[in-house]
Amino acid sequence: MPASYAYLGPEGTFTEVALRTLPESATRQLVPMVSVPAALDAVRAGEAEAAFVPIENSVEGGITTTIDQLAVGEPLMIYREVLLSITFALLVRPGTKLSDIKTVSAHPAAQPQVRNWMRDHLPDVVWESAASNADGARLVQEGRYDAAFAGEFAAARYGLEALETEIHDAENAQTRFVLVGRPARPAAPTGADKTSVVIWQRDDHPGALLELLQEFAVRGVNLMLLQSRPTGEGIGNYCFAIDAEGHISDRRVAEALTGLKRVCPQVRFLGSYPQADVDPKDMRAPRAGTSDDEFAAASDWLARCQDGRF
Amino acid sequence: MPASYAYLGPEGTFTEVALRTLPESATRQLVPMVSVPAALDAVRAGEAEAAFVPIENSVEGGITTTIDQLAVGEPLMIYREVLLSITFALLVRPGTKLSDIKTVSAHPAAQPQVRNWMRDHLPDVVWESAASNADGARLVQEGRYDAAFAGEFAAARYGLEALETEIHDAENAQTRFVLVGRPARPAAPTGADKTSVVIWQRDDHPGALLELLQEFAVRGVNLMLLQSRPTGEGIGNYCFAIDAEGHISDRRVAEALTGLKRVCPQVRFLGSYPQADVDPKDMRAPRAGTSDDEFAAASDWLARCQDGRF
Amino acid sequence: MPASYAYLGPEGTFTEVALRTLPESATRQLVPMVSVPAALDAVRAGEAEAAFVPIENSVEGGITTTIDQLAVGEPLMIYREVLLSITFALLVRPGTKLSDIKTVSAHPAAQPQVRNWMRDHLPDVVWESAASNADGARLVQEGRYDAAFAGEFAAARYGLEALETEIHDAENAQTRFVLVGRPARPAAPTGADKTSVVIWQRDDHPGALLELLQEFAVRGVNLMLLQSRPTGEGIGNYCFAIDAEGHISDRRVAEALTGLKRVCPQVRFLGSYPQADVDPKDMRAPRAGTSDDEFAAASDWLARCQDGRF
Amino acid sequence: MPASYAYLGPEGTFTEVALRTLPESATRQLVPMVSVPAALDAVRAGEAEAAFVPIENSVEGGITTTIDQLAVGEPLMIYREVLLSITFALLVRPGTKLSDIKTVSAHPAAQPQVRNWMRDHLPDVVWESAASNADGARLVQEGRYDAAFAGEFAAARYGLEALETEIHDAENAQTRFVLVGRPARPAAPTGADKTSVVIWQRDDHPGALLELLQEFAVRGVNLMLLQSRPTGEGIGNYCFAIDAEGHISDRRVAEALTGLKRVCPQVRFLGSYPQADVDPKDMRAPRAGTSDDEFAAASDWLARCQDGRF
Repeated sequence: MPASYAYLGPEGTFTEVALRTLPESATRQLVPMVSVPAALDAVRAGEAEAAFVPIENSVEGGITTTIDQLAVGEPLMIYREVLLSITFALLVRPGTKLSDIKTVSAHPAAQPQVRNWMRDHLPDVVWESAASNADGARLVQEGRYDAAFAGEFAAARYGLEALETEIHDAENAQTRFVLVGRPARPAAPTGADKTSVVIWQRDDHPGALLELLQEFAVRGVNLMLLQSRPTGEGIGNYCFAIDAEGHISDRRVAEALTGLKRVCPQVRFLGSYPQADVDPKDMRAPRAGTSDDEFAAASDWLARCQDGRF
Repeated sequence: MPASYAYLGPEGTFTEVALRTLPESATRQLVPMVSVPAALDAVRAGEAEAAFVPIENSVEGGITTTIDQLAVGEPLMIYREVLLSITFALLVRPGTKLSDIKTVSAHPAAQPQVRNWMRDHLPDVVWESAASNADGARLVQEGRYDAAFAGEFAAARYGLEALETEIHDAENAQTRFVLVGRPARPAAPTGADKTSVVIWQRDDHPGALLELLQEFAVRGVNLMLLQSRPTGEGIGNYCFAIDAEGHISDRRVAEALTGLKRVCPQVRFLGSYPQADVDPKDMRAPRAGTSDDEFAAASDWLARCQDGRF
Repeated sequence: MPASYAYLGPEGTFTEVALRTLPESATRQLVPMVSVPAALDAVRAGEAEAAFVPIENSVEGGITTTIDQLAVGEPLMIYREVLLSITFALLVRPGTKLSDIKTVSAHPAAQPQVRNWMRDHLPDVVWESAASNADGARLVQEGRYDAAFAGEFAAARYGLEALETEIHDAENAQTRFVLVGRPARPAAPTGADKTSVVIWQRDDHPGALLELLQEFAVRGVNLMLLQSRPTGEGIGNYCFAIDAEGHISDRRVAEALTGLKRVCPQVRFLGSYPQADVDPKDMRAPRAGTSDDEFAAASDWLARCQDGRF
Repeated sequence: MPASYAYLGPEGTFTEVALRTLPESATRQLVPMVSVPAALDAVRAGEAEAAFVPIENSVEGGITTTIDQLAVGEPLMIYREVLLSITFALLVRPGTKLSDIKTVSAHPAAQPQVRNWMRDHLPDVVWESAASNADGARLVQEGRYDAAFAGEFAAARYGLEALETEIHDAENAQTRFVLVGRPARPAAPTGADKTSVVIWQRDDHPGALLELLQEFAVRGVNLMLLQSRPTGEGIGNYCFAIDAEGHISDRRVAEALTGLKRVCPQVRFLGSYPQADVDPKDMRAPRAGTSDDEFAAASDWLARCQDGRF
């Protein structure tokens, strides 16, 4: 029996499409799960080798359920990311016309991506939230709703047809997905990598975020995502999910992480992995003074100073 | 006909309970709306004097729909905030026992606040999302679902009874609501105020957030909330909703805002208003060198230097 | 009787040469003084319109007597600066050969500029400090010493001849002189200006200098000189003489100065004046967000926010 | 023949008095030298084990000759520092009265410490600079000048008497001296140590000093001295002599030094040595997150993250 990847189901969602772009998915059993927590818990319980879940969306921002589930509980690590462009099709039972539609369904996350289109084309229909876009399509198939927003690829699976395709309020709408497993040694750096952490700030200290960001800045580490999340300990208490450019084996990243570890009450390492869709050849060089060679030269110099040999 | 306040309906939600804590609500017509955008659009269209909507939640974080709707479109301003402690009751039709419950409904935002309780007490029930907690209660009244999580106050309205009360996974769960109107001169400072802005960072500039936070830090302005929101222009492009301590008429806040205005491609002022539940007497003094008196003395000194009189 | 400029004498020093490069010196009586304090006190006492004194030297650094005298006592202001390249001639009585020289004299400040040359050409001569380079020349004329390092222009005045010219250990050795008067409105900005201040840091606060420099950095004001000076209140207590790029009427400079005024126990404004030897056309533009136009636009925006008109 | 310590002579100066406070001086031959460069060169040439020279003065600031000589040339290291309170006596030939004094001599560095006293008590005397305070005393003995400012201890040596003692314009005037040797392993940390470096900033980069100071600040390393010195490459080009709190074996100091080494074009380590007159018991604890234990814990955590064991 092959190892399995749990993913946010059901079948026929953008998540599955994104997952199938990973070559390794061809040799795994792909198991749809009812929720992100369920997919991650399958990994924690050892029932799945890895979970594949959405984590960031260019329209809605960080997928908070995913971030929150990674931030607490048994540690997990991110090993891969996938970027997928998102456009919707309006799926209906064959023969349905636009003017027939009284109800439309999709996952709530789809709503901001189709809101303007609905305002223009379906101003009076009732929106019904579904557990997933694919589930919305299934409910159309069953006759419960008249139409569903979903990926065009879902039409065939549910016997529907696409009345309209390429629906997307924002140009370049993308969702970022991650492949998550139990902790292990991160893959070797590729030259275009990303490191994810969650950091907690001391709640008695207003300038704390600035100081935390300086731990990155002083070592020349660029940030790619900073997503605030409440800690659940009252209004105004936040932790931050951060994606930084570089790999934990890069010395500038390693030193920044130890800096955070020293000054934050809590830091959780979520992995170092290749940046999707970026060729290492296109990466700019690290800021002067922050390359591994420069770190190594400075360490050598320090050792000579400590020994009085210079 | 009295002026009206639009609020995120339906009736019987936490939002209505919070709104009624505002004395001025007693003299307004309170109009439930189907969504946050609908409530805000009623203000923009001049159909309501103000809108009352949730904006932050100690469990889920910023209410992204509210933040996103305030960040773009016709400008609006926040005039008041209300903090409400959130605990849920499990509402059922009279006579239903815990063991009878197969389906339970509530707004998706309620889910993280009752997830653990459900795992312990209702491990096998099916979760059905509702448009609001009150709507979930209505669907229970209609017999579509067996139980709903909602405020205990909703029981009477829908002919239900509370099988359990004080359900809340996190201690001190609170939601913050804001009263939003068209732009006007902010209320005078009380001594315990808050200023809300949305700032956009230059997307070609990795250390930009650090620089923006320094505009606050160098003037001694504390931050109370930093919520990243995608700009909709692709993965990794974020703006930030920020709540800062102080009032736009405080000189340290005013100078920090002009600093942001100069270095950000876009800044939106969302208002200065009293901090809920804080007595001005309990506020610590501003950092040395940042009081209005010290600003005024420094301006006087500068004028003397510019005139050569010293 | 024309107004007079006091300068660090005696006649025939680099100071006089530098002073004569100022067009206005042609219409003043130029009065040599025995010391920098004497020259400055003549201004304070109303006996001279202005004083002309050295303030910085590319070999020796800040001229500490000048800085210290400007930092305390009755306030004075800098109105002009002059840069002069410094090379020395070896002056002797006519007929003296290099091999005849047993003693050589000059002001102590000349020593680091001729040390290497002496090592190579006059390894065994005795150095005798003089009150000024011109005074050294005078003492050679009187037969007390065999040779003096001074400007070549001093030879004629003292009946000496230059055995060697263009002596300078460091290439590009320059001295900066300033014209100092009683406080008055600074000259209008030229587009290539410099603002001088002395700031005191709070002595109980180790990171204070960093914070003071951030007052400049956050407003995009570049520093051209930072000279630490002891406050006289014990080892480790320092104030800082700072030259910043720009004019006190530039809004970024003005705001930085008020920031310093608020957070420093003491700030002394020493003037805004044209940078010597810099054409305003060659100045780079201020950093994005820090021009006067951007400051004005931000102030307008703030006023609109404070009024609720936007 | 015992090892020798070269010191800034002649005999009978404050330098000799300070040197004799070091217990190890009792077992060395103490050799007066004519200048600071001569004393340091004796060490570089292997003719002396160490040199003892003044480096900072609470009235005049850094002793620039010493700093400049340590900053360039064959590397040397500081092993000890001594603080000495400085007060002057007015030394005269026996029988001389105050009203007899027409000329007074001392080293130029003494002048700012006695200027006010002279204004009040000897307003009309002529100041004659001497190579050292002891040399001034010698010239009084020889009858060349009428009086000298020097340490009271110099009276006996030169057959003079102290007409006045405890002369000092500033209260708490102190001079700091250092014992300098060839590079070797620094002494073990005592808990109250100081680390001296000279750093060069990139001259094309106006905010550079701020960035260099942040290398210390972000690791919680306090600065005790920052002395700018010209690099000799033209007006406005400075390097900085810095004394930081802590020992190069403290991890916060070591990491700050490697940070400087990476971003500065040049860094020179001048030693880690005990702070004079400070009891390690009186030191405050390092800032939270910057102790050696916290550094070690963070490194352990990093290693576990890099190995995927957490």
